[in-house]
Amino acid sequence: MSDVNIPYEESDLYRIRHSAAHVMAEAVLELFPAAMLAIGPPVEDGFYYDFDLGKDENGKPRTFSEEDLAQIEQRMKELLKQNAPFEHSSMTIAAAQEFFASQAYKLELIADLAAGKLNENGVPTAVPASEVSIYTQRNFVDLCRGPHVKYTKQVKANAVKLLRTGGAYWRGDEHKPQLQRIYGTAWHNKEELDEYLKLLEEAKARDHRRLGKQLGLFHISQLVGSGLPLWLPNGAILREALESFLRQAQLERGYLPVITPHIGKLDLYITSGHYPYYKDSQYTPIDVDGEKFMLKPMNCPHHIEIYRSEAHSYRDLPLRLAEFGTVYRHEQSGELNGLTRARGFTVDDSHLFVTPDQLEAEFIGVIDLIQHIFQTMGFYDFRARLGTNDPDSDKYAGTPEMWQRGVKAICQAADKVGMNYTLEKGEAAFYGPKLDFIFRDVLKREWQLGTVQVDFLLPERFDLEYTAEDGQKHRPVMIHRAPFGSMERFVGILIEHFNGAFPLWLAPVQVMLVPIADRHNDYAHDVSRKLRAAGLRTAVDDSSDRMNKKIRNAQLQKIPYMLVIGDKEMENGAVAVRTRDEEDRGALPVAEFITQATTLIKTKRLEL
Amino acid sequence: MSDVNIPYEESDLYRIRHSAAHVMAEAVLELFPAAMLAIGPPVEDGFYYDFDLGKDENGKPRTFSEEDLAQIEQRMKELLKQNAPFEHSSMTIAAAQEFFASQAYKLELIADLAAGKLNENGVPTAVPASEVSIYTQRNFVDLCRGPHVKYTKQVKANAVKLLRTGGAYWRGDEHKPQLQRIYGTAWHNKEELDEYLKLLEEAKARDHRRLGKQLGLFHISQLVGSGLPLWLPNGAILREALESFLRQAQLERGYLPVITPHIGKLDLYITSGHYPYYKDSQYTPIDVDGEKFMLKPMNCPHHIEIYRSEAHSYRDLPLRLAEFGTVYRHEQSGELNGLTRARGFTVDDSHLFVTPDQLEAEFIGVIDLIQHIFQTMGFYDFRARLGTNDPDSDKYAGTPEMWQRGVKAICQAADKVGMNYTLEKGEAAFYGPKLDFIFRDVLKREWQLGTVQVDFLLPERFDLEYTAEDGQKHRPVMIHRAPFGSMERFVGILIEHFNGAFPLWLAPVQVMLVPIADRHNDYAHDVSRKLRAAGLRTAVDDSSDRMNKKIRNAQLQKIPYMLVIGDKEMENGAVAVRTRDEEDRGALPVAEFITQATTLIKTKRLEL
Repeated sequence: MSDVNIPYEESDLYRIRHSAAHVMAEAVLELFPAAMLAIGPPVEDGFYYDFDLGKDENGKPRTFSEEDLAQIEQRMKELLKQNAPFEHSSMTIAAAQEFFASQAYKLELIADLAAGKLNENGVPTAVPASEVSIYTQRNFVDLCRGPHVKYTKQVKANAVKLLRTGGAYWRGDEHKPQLQRIYGTAWHNKEELDEYLKLLEEAKARDHRRLGKQLGLFHISQLVGSGLPLWLPNGAILREALESFLRQAQLERGYLPVITPHIGKLDLYITSGHYPYYKDSQYTPIDVDGEKFMLKPMNCPHHIEIYRSEAHSYRDLPLRLAEFGTVYRHEQSGELNGLTRARGFTVDDSHLFVTPDQLEAEFIGVIDLIQHIFQTMGFYDFRARLGTNDPDSDKYAGTPEMWQRGVKAICQAADKVGMNYTLEKGEAAFYGPKLDFIFRDVLKREWQLGTVQVDFLLPERFDLEYTAEDGQKHRPVMIHRAPFGSMERFVGILIEHFNGAFPLWLAPVQVMLVPIADRHNDYAHDVSRKLRAAGLRTAVDDSSDRMNKKIRNAQLQKIPYMLVIGDKEMENGAVAVRTRDEEDRGALPVAEFITQATTLIKTKRLEL
Repeated sequence: MSDVNIPYEESDLYRIRHSAAHVMAEAVLELFPAAMLAIGPPVEDGFYYDFDLGKDENGKPRTFSEEDLAQIEQRMKELLKQNAPFEHSSMTIAAAQEFFASQAYKLELIADLAAGKLNENGVPTAVPASEVSIYTQRNFVDLCRGPHVKYTKQVKANAVKLLRTGGAYWRGDEHKPQLQRIYGTAWHNKEELDEYLKLLEEAKARDHRRLGKQLGLFHISQLVGSGLPLWLPNGAILREALESFLRQAQLERGYLPVITPHIGKLDLYITSGHYPYYKDSQYTPIDVDGEKFMLKPMNCPHHIEIYRSEAHSYRDLPLRLAEFGTVYRHEQSGELNGLTRARGFTVDDSHLFVTPDQLEAEFIGVIDLIQHIFQTMGFYDFRARLGTNDPDSDKYAGTPEMWQRGVKAICQAADKVGMNYTLEKGEAAFYGPKLDFIFRDVLKREWQLGTVQVDFLLPERFDLEYTAEDGQKHRPVMIHRAPFGSMERFVGILIEHFNGAFPLWLAPVQVMLVPIADRHNDYAHDVSRKLRAAGLRTAVDDSSDRMNKKIRNAQLQKIPYMLVIGDKEMENGAVAVRTRDEEDRGALPVAEFITQATTLIKTKRLEL
């Protein structure tokens, strides 16, 4: 919900939320004078602040209650209504250490700044600071780079709401102290806040974990493991429909399927350079007969080994290898969220090995494929982000020249197809720049989906070659791409975007046959068989429930069509068509319904 | 190549081969008096004997050379031609220990027999022996239960051949001494031997590892790991065609797809009881935040967790969950063999949860599905084997009553469909009896493929339930089944059976367009597009090679059809059709070729 024309960090909302965080901390300190302050940044759609309230009588971290939260919000609103200025100043390191002497977390931040290790935002910096930046409102003084609004009043009290509390670790490290986080939101005005709260309510109702259970899409078993979804039949049918769709689109574009194992030797990931980047977020290696194997965090090295399995000439290129490849990364348990954040997920992965001359055309081809997919899904509201490396960070491999060539290739391709994009430093993959497609769902939430990446690095690391027309060995360029991103995440987003009411071609059960009485059951099964022979996914509710209950059940399952069958329908070889949106379409001959439905499926229409 | 009417162990060939093994050992002892003897059983199509020849000057195990092998065979044949009797006797344990005092391996065998641990065949036995069984020919005395032929002459010298030598571990345990194994074969007569040797040659030419490389089907990268095949595009296309075929057959039979992760908590496998059976052949557990995970050796526990994800009524059953589930087992590196013996393989797995009343009908349904698949593949030469538990072994879980019920269910189902089967003790899964389908390929080699298993045990272990019509909780029965067995192994067998010349519907590239000169290239590409639009997999050889070379190349790739295109074809909108078998079918209008080819594909015809 940010203004897309300027970066969030430079927006009014960012200042409003950052200021709200400070005033909230001020209120907390008034009510809990012993609280220790950690950090409190603006985040997407709001802000938070982390506090250490000490231990309770059981030695557990003291937490905020619902009542505490209400009281804090109350006091915060009073403080906001005053016209206190936010004043910017600086302190020497020594002065700051003295001033924050009782605030252990602030002291640690100051020490890091003084040592040139991390800045206030936790970002590595190489320059030791001699002074620190300070913001003050009333008696509340915080270590902070800003920006803030000028006066507390500019954050409207009726446009602010504290949302919830939760646990968080100092510096996100589970081995460090546990802190109490308060999440809040703040907007320009009450109308915006109300609209946001409505969307939040709606998002809760659409939560894919809730719908996933209700619609039989997926299940997470604690005996199998957290973050490892089991796809139930309805979910597997939906996912397979998506995979078939992409498979077909790829077939038409000259992609070739491959299938690779889910483990590989550690050496493979050391060669690729993935290992140092993924070792912390990776399952520990498996030791076998003195050899170490890893669950694969990425498919690229496996596809590269396929490229290397034989010699290539320029006539083989572009070589587009595609796989729905399941990868495993050890996300922290607190960050897991149903399908959208899992420990095992399947990337609709492809690696294109191309000559430098083919790079632009192939990159455009990939953009075209992603646009085709988004259009088919009805994802019209999306933007592109060009993620580049941050030269100040050591997170990125490769030479500056490689990065320049990569960025240039992406820009040229995007310009050629007239695609707008924003540039974001530090959003690249470790091996090269990438173009991400960010989709805004019906609830105006942004989700990063498809990605295309240019890579000059891995071809070097694996010494990839092809023989060019000149008879010499040359180095190919790689394009990494995944239009859906991950099947798990994509389906999670689809569930919430469509509120579980999927387009006909994706609906796990497309048609529910509803015989009114037992004497209509045989005919209903007969119609069902006809529909199935035409490729439709059907079910028959021949239970003893009454018709209205059967219809309600099918609607709860968000089944697109209910075909009601009574005496008249049986006589006429017809069905009475109702949709999940309670629309009564009247009677249709079976054959005609089949034609209508199969046409909608074939054309992947979003509407019924 | 065994006589299917009586068990191999009771056949003449078994005696012939067992006797040949003894006479070979006799020859080895004559030529290498210091050799220590391990064991020498008959095996499928032949026999072997393992020897310890001591160490060479480098401290490595001394091996047999080619010349040694020739000399041993020569001496063995001389010994066979004599009319020495095989004499059966027995020795007390003490006498045997004295007699075999210089033969350490025999002493170990004797000690195990005396302790009632393992019998001569390495099979656990509970009864301590007071004497051991001995066979003697001439001066050669061996610990042996027989049976043997009566006189050495009954093993015809010209029907025996030593095939190769290789390393083997004592008792198959890589931590025990390495032995030298000599493999030989023996038959009723020279004609049978010659036929067998011809098949061996043919098998070598058809080796799926060789064809796999030549046809671009799969690759094993040492950087990814031994036993972990990478499916190259042609292999992946072939595999996906097989999977689609089974998916469709399953859809028509009411199976539901599921997708599950490739790891699971150790607890899951401890609950299921798999862990003790698989821990030695399993990758070591992965330790994460104090929780242990395992690469899954089997899919059953995951599918069971899906069953357990919600309550079931009898109306939900039978519930048939199906997945192409990749599992990992740590086979010893010496046992790996391309696709047919891999460390990662994909089971075309399904678990049917049924009421006791449904068991027979569902079992019959599975037999029917397997027969449908075998018929489609043209696998007419197969037999069924009912594997039961060995009550003397502790390898099997569950109660005797469960085993009886399971065996009875299988027998009744098999009898009902008129399927013959042989009973084999000790061939069951640990959780229940199974019916295996054993296919004999064109080279007369037997391969175990599809399997169906009845399981009363896992439903107990996981406390599975459904609510029956009586309103009470009842225990379902499980059927485990996999018609292909493993996609890797099945494709490996297919490659050798078809010698890489797959039926049209499975061929990775179905049609190669062969323009005679450059001026025909555009038309060739045009025809290719038309064929692709009709769903055919095509390629165009627009290289500068001459027509005959292009045709030869396509034949080497075993591409079913070559469509040659010259001036006349271009004029007439036709193609000149040739098959990989060098058959020249003359010119056909493009549309007619499409009709012919798509019909063959749709009906999955084996012939072109």
